[in-house]
Amino acid sequence: MTAQDTALAYFRAWTGKDFDKAMTYIADDIVCDAPPGRIEGAEAFRAFMGPFAGTVEDSALLAAFGDDTTAVLVYDTKTALVPSAPGAEYVTVQDGRITHMRIIFDRAPFEAARARASRD
Amino acid sequence: MTAQDTALAYFRAWTGKDFDKAMTYIADDIVCDAPPGRIEGAEAFRAFMGPFAGTVEDSALLAAFGDDTTAVLVYDTKTALVPSAPGAEYVTVQDGRITHMRIIFDRAPFEAARARASRD
Repeated sequence: MTAQDTALAYFRAWTGKDFDKAMTYIADDIVCDAPPGRIEGAEAFRAFMGPFAGTVEDSALLAAFGDDTTAVLVYDTKTALVPSAPGAEYVTVQDGRITHMRIIFDRAPFEAARARASRD
Repeated sequence: MTAQDTALAYFRAWTGKDFDKAMTYIADDIVCDAPPGRIEGAEAFRAFMGPFAGTVEDSALLAAFGDDTTAVLVYDTKTALVPSAPGAEYVTVQDGRITHMRIIFDRAPFEAARARASRD
């Protein structure tokens, strides 16, 4: 499997509601640089991404590129809170598992949706 | 020039404080899907990206990939308001100019910085 294959397998699993399978592509000592800050280790990564993955109603892969050790995915997601939440992931893969992930998305619409919900 | 070459030339120009040069890589009828919504046309694009580019103090290219017509860049920027503001751009290029750009970044730290500034 190339780095891109691993990134795509992870993407298909988490957008396909199989987060246990998604985690099989995540290294135990993953370092994830995400909008809220750095997340270290598979357990913390699951606590960060798992709840979001559970809210995804639909997704579309927009772009996928990679080389021997790294890959980039760009995608859009539809969630209960936010109808279009695009994201980009830049991953480093070793032995079929993602050891580093830089994930980029806009927290603003999620914060706005939570603020609306707390007012209701 | 490949699509990636064009994306990189645009990136180097705007992070290098030469936004006039950056605009030479932007199609007149560019469509840009950005966190605030869709931006259409070079003039609106300049109004959106130019002010942000002017605040960039430092930048680092993290990843660049492409094929015949598309490219993806992942980068980090340091701005006066936000010390680390990573972004991803997925672009389509025709005849050496970017005709479509999907740009992904987190607006939350910018909104927080503006809120702090308005309280001071």
